[in-house]
Amino acid sequence: MTVIYNRVALIGLGLIASSMAHAMKAHGLAGEIVGHAKSAETRATALEIGFVDRVAATAAEAVVGADLVVLAVPVGAMGAVAAEIGPHLAPGATVTDVGSVKQAVIDAVAPHMPEGVHFVAGHPIAGTEHSGPRSGFATLFVNRWWLLTPAPGTDPAATLRLRQLCEGMGAKVDEMDAAHHDLVLAVTSHTPHLIAYTMVGVADDLRRVTDSEVIQYSAAGFRDFTRIAASDPTMWRDVFLTNKEATLDILGRFTEELFALQRAIRLGDGDHLHAYFTRTRAIRRGIIEAGQDTAAPDFGRVQPPAGE
Amino acid sequence: MTVIYNRVALIGLGLIASSMAHAMKAHGLAGEIVGHAKSAETRATALEIGFVDRVAATAAEAVVGADLVVLAVPVGAMGAVAAEIGPHLAPGATVTDVGSVKQAVIDAVAPHMPEGVHFVAGHPIAGTEHSGPRSGFATLFVNRWWLLTPAPGTDPAATLRLRQLCEGMGAKVDEMDAAHHDLVLAVTSHTPHLIAYTMVGVADDLRRVTDSEVIQYSAAGFRDFTRIAASDPTMWRDVFLTNKEATLDILGRFTEELFALQRAIRLGDGDHLHAYFTRTRAIRRGIIEAGQDTAAPDFGRVQPPAGE
Repeated sequence: MTVIYNRVALIGLGLIASSMAHAMKAHGLAGEIVGHAKSAETRATALEIGFVDRVAATAAEAVVGADLVVLAVPVGAMGAVAAEIGPHLAPGATVTDVGSVKQAVIDAVAPHMPEGVHFVAGHPIAGTEHSGPRSGFATLFVNRWWLLTPAPGTDPAATLRLRQLCEGMGAKVDEMDAAHHDLVLAVTSHTPHLIAYTMVGVADDLRRVTDSEVIQYSAAGFRDFTRIAASDPTMWRDVFLTNKEATLDILGRFTEELFALQRAIRLGDGDHLHAYFTRTRAIRRGIIEAGQDTAAPDFGRVQPPAGE
Repeated sequence: MTVIYNRVALIGLGLIASSMAHAMKAHGLAGEIVGHAKSAETRATALEIGFVDRVAATAAEAVVGADLVVLAVPVGAMGAVAAEIGPHLAPGATVTDVGSVKQAVIDAVAPHMPEGVHFVAGHPIAGTEHSGPRSGFATLFVNRWWLLTPAPGTDPAATLRLRQLCEGMGAKVDEMDAAHHDLVLAVTSHTPHLIAYTMVGVADDLRRVTDSEVIQYSAAGFRDFTRIAASDPTMWRDVFLTNKEATLDILGRFTEELFALQRAIRLGDGDHLHAYFTRTRAIRRGIIEAGQDTAAPDFGRVQPPAGE
């Protein structure tokens, strides 16, 4: 229970910001938490739930006197928020963000940061398919990675202090180059999301198979896709627009491989399919060993009592 | 606790068969359960766990005197098993299967069924990413759909009795045409699995991003893909080879849609992306309302205590 920042300003009060607020309160990491969201209803909800101590009607007001400012808005909105708060930031303050893309955020935010303010971009790899101020919870970051991508020349003390906050919320912290971050995430998150959205869209379009059947008989594969495809549309639109190059690169590789498998199906090449499917099992084992998921069977996870 | 079949023969002792055995024992639905697997080790395991009352070294021996025979082998092996057991089936016996593809199984099995034996093809839409005799559990089918695809002219009493068994294990039962089943499942299960396998394969190939990073930072999207892609390779090879036409049809539609989204990313068409992602949210809500999944946030599901 060590206060790391005396006043934290959260700009944006959705899933990530509200979870940070819950976690900081649970662990006594922040002296005061000030929140801002564009919507008055969201601000009222945040006050009602009580994860912020007070709210401000503008981002500029919210950051006054804050020693940590967290930009938790969609990636496409970061630049405008940075321009607004820049003149109001306290000398020596740290500014971070929680966007899923890093190079585009740095390009949009850094130019607005005044001398003496430390900008340390960051990305907590945590989330659920829910969004909004009511979706946050204090344990969201526990055992999850929080990647920091400070620009070369950033004050190491500022980065260290932010790292301590992330660790205080239960996260594991790593630092990497922004462009590398964007490529890794294009593989592990952005492209999979686009594919899931596509598959769900295909099912929705298919008129020979009625919606109710698709829904009713949603087996494990499709059900997990719909979970992914239920994520926040604005956030994901911005991810694809701002991590365009890496996403298109990975998508190209994906299409190549998919065509090779499609061809194997058409030609009846069972050996090719079997070998491919065997290889992909190993990566799953790695993820379980890395503690990013459990080996517990998951497909049958909804098991209300029989007869329901 | 009503015995529905006096002697059930399970041919194949993997996830589905062992779960059926556990469920039948839990609810007293079978007088005796006889098991057969090609591997002596699997047979020994089944006896050791005790979900079968006895094992037989051949499928032909296992079915003697059974009033229900369940073919729980990969789809590609169904025809050979049917040919082997055909001459040994008891008059009046019911034969069913649990394969993920129905038309190909019917084509392979039906010709070997003697006069007076009822063949009712079936498919429990339940499973986990694990396989083998140790992976089964009694509640796997609870609240899951079990689709039966009896050929026209099948004795309704035989179908009804099998339906009662499925319901006794907790499943919800529906009947449909085999070809329609195969198309629905191509959308909800087969194509999503192929896509997940492909995405995991792409990540594995990508040399600029090391395996350990892909694994370490596996965000929700990719992590769920690896879960899907960890399923049994033999089972899935056979699914794609035997449901070729429907899978290729859905894959073609998928590729079309993916290219349209890829183009939107390349052109920076945010409105197109946002509209698409908004539409796919509705299907997710439908799945939750249909009881096939829960609304509980899932992406953050691994939450061991901080500091671990």
